[in-house]
This record gives sequence, C-alpha cells and structure tokens, in this order.
Amino acid sequence: MTILDILAKRRDGQEHAAEELRFLARGAASGEIPDYQLAAWLMAAYLRPLSRRETADLTLALAESGRRFDLSDLPGPLLDKHSTGGVGDKTSLVLLPLLAACGVTMVKLSGRGLGITGGTLDKIESIPGFRTSLTLEEAKEQARRIGLALCGQTPDLAPADGVLYALRDVTATVGSVPLIVSSILSKKLAGGSPRVLLDVKCGSGAFRRTLPEAEELAVALREVGEQIGLQATPLVTDMDQPLGRAVGNALEVCEALEVLQGAVDNRFGGFCLRLAQRALSLCGLDADLARRAIASGSAWDKALRWIEAQGGDLAALRNGAGLPSAPETAEVPCGAEGWVERVDARTVGAVAMRLGAGRLHKSDRIDPRVGVEVLVEVGDRVETGQPAFRVHAATVADAEKAAGDLREALKVVPSPVPRTPTVLLEP
Amino acid sequence: MTILDILAKRRDGQEHAAEELRFLARGAASGEIPDYQLAAWLMAAYLRPLSRRETADLTLALAESGRRFDLSDLPGPLLDKHSTGGVGDKTSLVLLPLLAACGVTMVKLSGRGLGITGGTLDKIESIPGFRTSLTLEEAKEQARRIGLALCGQTPDLAPADGVLYALRDVTATVGSVPLIVSSILSKKLAGGSPRVLLDVKCGSGAFRRTLPEAEELAVALREVGEQIGLQATPLVTDMDQPLGRAVGNALEVCEALEVLQGAVDNRFGGFCLRLAQRALSLCGLDADLARRAIASGSAWDKALRWIEAQGGDLAALRNGAGLPSAPETAEVPCGAEGWVERVDARTVGAVAMRLGAGRLHKSDRIDPRVGVEVLVEVGDRVETGQPAFRVHAATVADAEKAAGDLREALKVVPSPVPRTPTVLLEP
Repeated sequence: MTILDILAKRRDGQEHAAEELRFLARGAASGEIPDYQLAAWLMAAYLRPLSRRETADLTLALAESGRRFDLSDLPGPLLDKHSTGGVGDKTSLVLLPLLAACGVTMVKLSGRGLGITGGTLDKIESIPGFRTSLTLEEAKEQARRIGLALCGQTPDLAPADGVLYALRDVTATVGSVPLIVSSILSKKLAGGSPRVLLDVKCGSGAFRRTLPEAEELAVALREVGEQIGLQATPLVTDMDQPLGRAVGNALEVCEALEVLQGAVDNRFGGFCLRLAQRALSLCGLDADLARRAIASGSAWDKALRWIEAQGGDLAALRNGAGLPSAPETAEVPCGAEGWVERVDARTVGAVAMRLGAGRLHKSDRIDPRVGVEVLVEVGDRVETGQPAFRVHAATVADAEKAAGDLREALKVVPSPVPRTPTVLLEP
Repeated sequence: MTILDILAKRRDGQEHAAEELRFLARGAASGEIPDYQLAAWLMAAYLRPLSRRETADLTLALAESGRRFDLSDLPGPLLDKHSTGGVGDKTSLVLLPLLAACGVTMVKLSGRGLGITGGTLDKIESIPGFRTSLTLEEAKEQARRIGLALCGQTPDLAPADGVLYALRDVTATVGSVPLIVSSILSKKLAGGSPRVLLDVKCGSGAFRRTLPEAEELAVALREVGEQIGLQATPLVTDMDQPLGRAVGNALEVCEALEVLQGAVDNRFGGFCLRLAQRALSLCGLDADLARRAIASGSAWDKALRWIEAQGGDLAALRNGAGLPSAPETAEVPCGAEGWVERVDARTVGAVAMRLGAGRLHKSDRIDPRVGVEVLVEVGDRVETGQPAFRVHAATVADAEKAAGDLREALKVVPSPVPRTPTVLLEP
C-alpha cells in the first residue's frame, strides 16, 4: 500500500479499506506523508465524499493516531458536549457546572476561537487567574473531585486530526460533511466520554447556513457515532441571530454567570435549560434536575468551586468588578419603530472580531474586554431611538467604527414578526 | 484574489479568469503558494477539468512564469519536436540531424527518463564526452552554426510548470489531459519555436493506453496550440510494442546511428522517415528531402558534426567499439512456432528499467550499457528456439532474471497476424 494508491482510489471514487485510512492517519500523525499528498487527498475526499462506513473508519483511525483517554473509572454518568461554533455561544460555560451539579461528570476539551466564532477557552480565561492548561491527568483528578474540568485540546489526542484540520483550513476543504464528522467525533472518541451532546449551529453566524445543510451534518454525526460506539446526540440550533445578549469574552462570561445565578427566563437561559434537560435524559437522569439546580443555587455553587479549582479569582468575581471591562462604550439606536425582523449573527460576529474579541489569524491576540451587547431580539417591538446594540471597545475610534458597522446587522419592519425558536431540529 | 478563492472556484467547477491562472503560476514559481495548496488545486483540476480556454490561459501563464527564449533571428524554418514517451523511442536522435540536414533549425530541450520511459538526454550521453549541459545561449549559437542543438531543460524556462509537474507525479494527478497539455505546450512555447511536431504515444508502453485516450490528448494539444499561437501538429503512434530493435541507452544510440547511415528499410527507420516527411511539410519544405538526405550521406555528416560540436568522441564512434557495452548477454528463444501476436512494450520497458537502463526513482543512476534487443515484431513468422530477445546485462544473475521476465512479453499464436502500423492517427 502506498499513498499514491490511496490517492488514486479516492480520486476515482473507489471505496477505501479501513487499513488504508489507518495508513493515512498514521502517516499524517508521524509526518511520513507530506502535506501536499494529504492536501490532494483532502480535495479528492471533498469532491468524492467518503461513505458512512469510510467516515466511521477514518474517525477510528484518527482517534487511534494518538492517545485515547480513559475516563471509565470516574463516578457518575460521563458526558461530553460540542458546538460547531457560533456568535455569542457561551453555552458550555453554563452547562458544565449546571450538569455537574446534577451529578453528571464532564471532562471537556475545548478550542480557541477563529474568525467570527468564539472559543470557550478564550472566554473562560477572561476570569483572572483561570488556568486552562491542565494535563489530562489533572483534569481527570479534578473531575473525580468536583465533577467537571475544562482544558485545552492536547496535541497527543487525535494528532492526525490536528494535521488534517489545519490543512483543510488552507485548502478550501473545510465544508465536507464526512471530514467534519470524522474530525469532531475522533476528538470526542479519544476524549473518553461514551456520550456526547452535539450542538449543530445553523444560520448566518454558523458555517452551516441552511437547515438542510445543518440537518445533513447532524444526521451524519449521529449515524457515524452509532457505527463507532459513541452515543452522539445532535441538536440543530439557531445561529441566525447571536445567542443571548453578549458577544465578546468577558461579556459572555458575565451572561453565563447570570444564568447560573438564576436568570433563565430569557432566550439564552431557556436554551441552556433545554440542552441541560436533553443531556440529563441522555445520562438516564431526571430532566427536571436542571431547573432545580439553578433554583436551589447548587449550580452556582458548583460554578464557584469549579472556577476556584482552576485558579480563577473568586473575590474578583464576587465584587462584580473583577472581570476586565472596556474603557469605551457606544450605543446603536434603532433607526425606525416596528418589529425586529433580523439581527444578523455574521455581521455582529465580524464586528466583535474586528473590535478584538476574536481572531482573524490564529496568531492574533484577543482582547477579553471588548465586544457587543445585543439589546434586541427577532420579534421584539422597538421604538425609534431605542438602543439596539451597545459596543464595548478599546478606543473611541473603534467604538464609532463598530457602531456604524452594526447598523447593517439590524432590520426593523412595520408589521409584527414571530419570535424564532432556539432549537430547530432534533434529528 | 487569494489562493483560497481560486481553490474554491476550481473545487466548485467555476471557470478561472486568466488573471487567476497567472496568480497561480506566479505563486508556484516564486514559492509564495505552498505545495499543499498547489496539490489541492491539482486534484481539484483533475476532478473538475479545465476548459480549452482555461488550458490555453494556464499554458500561457506557465510559459510566462519564467524566461521566454527568442530564436526568431535564427536562419531556416524553426521546428521543435516532443514525444510523450515510450519504450525504445530514440526518434529524436534521428530526426534532429536528419531535419537539420534538410535545412530545418532545431533547438531541442530534452528530459531524463523515469519509469519505463527513456529520456533523450540519457541516451545521447552514452556517447563518450557528449555534453548536454549547454546554456540556452550556447545552444542557440550552435544551432546558428550547424542547424541543431540538444540540451537539458533549464529551470528558468516555465519554472511554474517544473513545480506543478513534480507535484503531479506525487499526487496521482498525472493523467489529466488539460494539465498534460499545459505542461507540454508551456515548455515548447517558452522554448521559442513557432511550430512543434508532437508524437503522442499510444499503447501498453505509453501513459495513454488506448486510442481514444491518445486521440483526446492529441486533439487537445492541437486545439490549445491554435489558441496560444503555436502550430502544434500531433501524430498518434503505436507504443504497444517497443519502437525498433533496441531498448537501452547505448543500444538505442547504435540503432539511431544505423538509420542515419541508411538503414531505413525497417519498422523504426520507416517511422523516422514518416515523421521527418511530416515535419518537412510543416516547415514548407519538400518532404522528399528526408529520404535524399539519408541516401546522400548528408544526414550522417550532420550527425557527426553535431556529436563533435557537443563534445562527443567521434573516434570512439567510428571504430565501432566506442559505445559502452554490457559484459553479459543472454538470449530468450521463442517457445513455439507460429506468428508473433504481441511483444509487450510495458513488460520490455520494465525489464530494461530493472536491468539499469531506466530509473525507478529520480535519483537512480542509469547504466548506459544495459538493455534489451527485441529481435521479433508483431506479425513475424517465427520458429521454436529462434531468438526473440537478447538481454544486455551487468551480471549473469541480472541477465538470467531479465530473460525469465521477458518470456511474459511475447505471445506467439498458430495463425498469421497482421503487422501493425507505426502511425495510428493524424488527428
């Protein structure tokens, strides 16, 4: 078997044997197969998509290219959670302590943000002192003690996926469903949880823009999960408008902490409860535990224990001024009265990124202070001059530029508009 | 314009603008576009083939990526010649001095052999002292003086093609007609001759195995040539059996010199005359000049002047023992009487390569002495025990191995078999 044989088979649409995909994954991880051959294979795989069986075998091969983490001796039902990424998506910051408070054990490996999509690690690091560079052993030990841990993806988990993922980004092969599925599930499989809740974002602020595209990915995730022995439960959720009020790292942490402290009667809080309930059923637990954990304060207690365990400055959090805040703010008023028809997630995400809340290039530094507060939702009745957005910026010039750009994100129409659901499909 | 836009367009089968192909060629030549992005583009171009117009624009872009050689001030009609490569194809060694003797001016840039396909440079270097490392200026000056020059391809002609060509070899994208056409014609365009005779080989010893495949390539070469202002005249010729008697570097030089000295009444000699006649008509000269140049000895004189001009040892050639010869020989007899139905070029080429006449890897050294003499042709009446092949080898073991393998190449049947033409199509 040579890489040229494998390339020719993919090129000609012939089915790969499992051994061929293992050869590819091992060669990618070791560096024995050079980038240009992997890139050619990725383009061939984009244009001649892998079958379900091939996708499952590639997923296993990627997971086996490195270390597989064993969490089976941890107490409680194990759950992992993944989002395909969106604008203002701070759901993991709520779900981790909330579900841990309900008895679920979660060891979550997260990534950094890129483009308009934020990253959970970037967000949580807004809390002074919070340390995400745990080893897998430290994360496991912490999860044994308090039920949860959050840390960065380590390069020894699915290293072949790391190589292919980086290449997809620069070869216009990101959008292939089998490649996306194998990338997501291989990391989850290596991460050691037997079940995973998958939040497949759909809309202008996500990389799957339409419902059929998002559904296709969700179904593929579930079916490939079944084939590799991973209980993968996808939900397709709305990302046409930003999720919740805050877009930007410290702003999002604030909003997540508010939900944990009881503010669930809003679009984002309701969404968190809905996902938590789904997660609890998946784990064979009473779905109502989530609401009770918020009401009783046990979710908030868990959050504080978690932040403390990972080095976060609780005193700074408690006095309310502990998170970094931007020196300049500016408000964007509604230009007309009527009903909000559109708050475009992509535009808001791009503005937040340009303010410094996200990265255009992987090497960019983010500014935890900056971002956008979204003060209206689709379906809201608004008056002319009512604030629609509040910009948090490092400079007056940045704030003014952002405020100007945000006008494009809002559309107000003269007749009523229905509110949109957060969960679109449970395929 | 970014390479990612270009990749996405190719991937989605959208047509490239000429400027995009220039961007690609310039980036390939300068190294600004990394190999992995070029490799992904090549695979996308294989699966979403370039149109004729795109192929023409790519050809121009590749030619413009480096120096374009100006031969227009040379006397006589200018002609270039190219073969897509085969087994025993020493035609250029005959055509260069033969056509120069007829008043055509030829500056030919040649390549090395790879796989079962020999290279003109490797063959001619069997002549002791023959120097192929001429600069373009030296080659032009020699052509002005004696009408012909042969030298290696210089890296400053169509450098972008050099990069893409090397990548195609390792990404299973060699077989794409638009990529082949742009590679061949860009080098010919940069080489400076306004017309080129293209020998498109067809059969088991060529990379186009079937007549439709070879015809597709030949037509594409002619049509793209028209679009870029190059008079490209293709012939589809047989490569199911080796061309002529000799396969191996010094053996092939011997056979070519024999034709130049008058031995034209055989399959290879007839083929050379046929191509020479076509070339002369292309140049607006009397086609019969070729036969007369052989008969008068002027072709042979031209060959001697040429070899001398490029440093070849004429004394060694004249005494008949000047070419390197192998220490061991072995004959392969026909196993049955009857008629030869098949002498498989691919098998003979592979045996010769393993003997050391060719390269499996680019870095392999070749042995000029070794090879195979093919003593029968398709259509011949043969007796049991009559020699079919003569192996020339470095060791007894090599000779025995080769003799064994060559049995596979020959098929003798009990009823008469028609001879096969050398020129299959002039599309």
